[in-house]
Amino acid sequence: MTVSVGSPLLADLSEALPAAALSTDDAELDRHSRDSAPFSAAGRPAVVVRPETVDQVRHVMRTARAHGVPVVPQGARTGLAGAANAVDGCVVLSMVRMNRVLEIDAANRLVRCEPGVVTADLAAAVAGHGLCYPPDPASWESCTIGGNIATGAGGLCCVKYGVTADYVLGLTVVLADGELLTVGRRTVKGVAGYDLTRLFVGSEGTLGVIVEATLALRPPRPPALALLARFASASDAGEAAGAIVRAGHVPSALELLDRTTTRAVAALGHPLLAGDAAATLIAASDAPDAAEAVREMARLCREAGALAVTAASGEEETRQVLDARRLVLPALSAQAVTMPGDVTAFIEDVAVPRSRLAALVDRIERIAGEYGLYISTVGHAGDGNLHPTVVFDRSDPSAVRRAREAYDAIMAAGLELGGTITGEHGVGTLKRDWLARELSPRALRLHRDLKRLLDPEGLLNPGKVLA
Amino acid sequence: MTVSVGSPLLADLSEALPAAALSTDDAELDRHSRDSAPFSAAGRPAVVVRPETVDQVRHVMRTARAHGVPVVPQGARTGLAGAANAVDGCVVLSMVRMNRVLEIDAANRLVRCEPGVVTADLAAAVAGHGLCYPPDPASWESCTIGGNIATGAGGLCCVKYGVTADYVLGLTVVLADGELLTVGRRTVKGVAGYDLTRLFVGSEGTLGVIVEATLALRPPRPPALALLARFASASDAGEAAGAIVRAGHVPSALELLDRTTTRAVAALGHPLLAGDAAATLIAASDAPDAAEAVREMARLCREAGALAVTAASGEEETRQVLDARRLVLPALSAQAVTMPGDVTAFIEDVAVPRSRLAALVDRIERIAGEYGLYISTVGHAGDGNLHPTVVFDRSDPSAVRRAREAYDAIMAAGLELGGTITGEHGVGTLKRDWLARELSPRALRLHRDLKRLLDPEGLLNPGKVLA
Repeated sequence: MTVSVGSPLLADLSEALPAAALSTDDAELDRHSRDSAPFSAAGRPAVVVRPETVDQVRHVMRTARAHGVPVVPQGARTGLAGAANAVDGCVVLSMVRMNRVLEIDAANRLVRCEPGVVTADLAAAVAGHGLCYPPDPASWESCTIGGNIATGAGGLCCVKYGVTADYVLGLTVVLADGELLTVGRRTVKGVAGYDLTRLFVGSEGTLGVIVEATLALRPPRPPALALLARFASASDAGEAAGAIVRAGHVPSALELLDRTTTRAVAALGHPLLAGDAAATLIAASDAPDAAEAVREMARLCREAGALAVTAASGEEETRQVLDARRLVLPALSAQAVTMPGDVTAFIEDVAVPRSRLAALVDRIERIAGEYGLYISTVGHAGDGNLHPTVVFDRSDPSAVRRAREAYDAIMAAGLELGGTITGEHGVGTLKRDWLARELSPRALRLHRDLKRLLDPEGLLNPGKVLA
Repeated sequence: MTVSVGSPLLADLSEALPAAALSTDDAELDRHSRDSAPFSAAGRPAVVVRPETVDQVRHVMRTARAHGVPVVPQGARTGLAGAANAVDGCVVLSMVRMNRVLEIDAANRLVRCEPGVVTADLAAAVAGHGLCYPPDPASWESCTIGGNIATGAGGLCCVKYGVTADYVLGLTVVLADGELLTVGRRTVKGVAGYDLTRLFVGSEGTLGVIVEATLALRPPRPPALALLARFASASDAGEAAGAIVRAGHVPSALELLDRTTTRAVAALGHPLLAGDAAATLIAASDAPDAAEAVREMARLCREAGALAVTAASGEEETRQVLDARRLVLPALSAQAVTMPGDVTAFIEDVAVPRSRLAALVDRIERIAGEYGLYISTVGHAGDGNLHPTVVFDRSDPSAVRRAREAYDAIMAAGLELGGTITGEHGVGTLKRDWLARELSPRALRLHRDLKRLLDPEGLLNPGKVLA
């Protein structure tokens, strides 16, 4: 479906939007048809709208509703579940131009901002006031706060500092009928009525469009020290992670690299990963007694059978250790280059109770073997949240089929081990069928009831979360 | 309304409940007619039911529904907003016999329990496994986890460790139609679908009856060190609290006592409060560098104009400092004894952005003067959450009227200063009219819609949260 410039929808949108805010350019429509998730259903938008004010967003919602046209909110489209994918003939509501930091209140440790602010820009803005916004999704240099909130994004440091949801104090939302809803508060604590804020966090744009957020901040994070330990098996590394948690440590990062990932990073020449190891554990501490914490965590790694442990005593060594984690994606890209065909990476997301982490790593290694796939697994060991990444040739139908089947097998393994189909990437279009398997029928019905309550005509990001 | 033993409701309840689980004894009905909030509307139950199993709870819900009789869930009735108050002719569903700790999973730092577990018992049970459940509402030695979750309870240590809501990973809920709903997860992270868990937290039994909870735990808290500083004004104390927060400290308690409270505790003979002071600030740190943190916070207090500062260097001194906070309620009881009439204490709850704390303390002092009332204000300064306590003679109609008017004036002041009508006690019956003033009309409508969605017949704890 395409829309001509003279279409009634465009004409009505134009009534309260400048021409520069509307685009029906083919390349633009293509570019805005999907986020960064492969395998996910996506359509072609009729128009891309980039509002700059709340009133313009309301106008878009009212106009789309009058025309019975679906609206798909988008941020930076870095999402990995298809939650920002267009549907045919929809209005894509791109929030990237609403990117102002509206207020930084240092005394009350909070920031108020528009949804299009890039996460790293927000972090930098508050750092300028001696404060810290901790959530650090991998795409933090390009993703937006609105997208982070809508998907309930996580990151590396949430093992100590919590996820995006933990920082959302209040929201302003444009509802499906174009009405404005303000929820939450500016106070640290508050229990006045139902928690409507959390209802919108992680709802992936299916219940309303976030147009403003009030976020809690923290004091700056002290400098961290880190250690890297290599193990003969993922079980040993998982045991070390468990021992660190059981001993009461609260590391600021606790990351596990499986055999495939360890090899890929080693192949880039990282000095600490030379030689053979089946798993790597990286732990950091930014506690006031970081040096002691790192020494103690290193001891626990050795007790769990580490082949080698490097405990950083200063900034430079710490950077070298953390580089091993930062190099994971570049290392996978380097691997992809050596593979034939149109090679792509499919980053998965599954979480299990912390104690089942090693079991899940083992299951994924078996699945990789079974389906003849290159799967690199890296994970937030402290959270039990793993990201298996399938690198495959998307021009090869057999590889595509096997990658899909492996994905299903990984989801099934996660649920079987008492986990969830998504720790931090969300449901989108990719996992809506799996959501129906994770939730009980009654919980699923309640999801549908809530969706109908807030979007009776089903025009807000249809087909996401719920099929 | 009273119900005879042979009533159809009782007969139907008895079908799946042992006789010992049902009571229509007059004293029992009286005792279960209200929680610990004065001024709050309360009725007389027809029967008090104490189920021991989830199936019995479901039976109660189905039976009550068949008879069109409201159900009021209760824990220990320590609530301060009337959220557990009976309505005439209702079934009181007392959850106190469902008090088993079902599972402590140390590896995954979580506990699964029934709602009737007393908070202190839960804390003790997990401490036995080397773990900590931090939330510490003032009534923690008698209140129940179910009540804590239903009201979204706070406490002293939430300035560092967060409130009850932050620890709820998953819930099992009996809905108004008797169906069982399981929400949430056992994993640290998870974003599979809408956050239904948070919808029930703080919903005060109006959307469902919590029959099981999965709660996150933490490593044990290290021993704390504390300081006590006396100030010539609440503004100075507020300034010191602000300076502590701005300097990046994360105290494990940061409590402010106003002039009236300081005097009352001093009158009990607490050595650190001798002499004259208009405000007292108590700060504690359980960080690994607690001694340094306390020294630094003491310096900030002096810079803010403290008259005297006692910085504890050990356990005994710390206990003495923290005793000043623990003695607040005994000190008010001692004051009450000296007052004529049928004296009662009305503990209020209001929260403002942290920077407005001193302004609110001043406003409350003025309100006390204006209405000729004894109001002692103590507060969680780090959270901007104050508890003004009105001590008055409830046999004196003028005092009752003035206490009510002062309460209204305090709520209005809280909202005017950008705050909320409740930081941690909830809405109940006491504040439902004020909730309608805090929320926008659209947010209030959404509250009503959610209530109707989950309880279309309005039989679950009617009149709470919403009028």
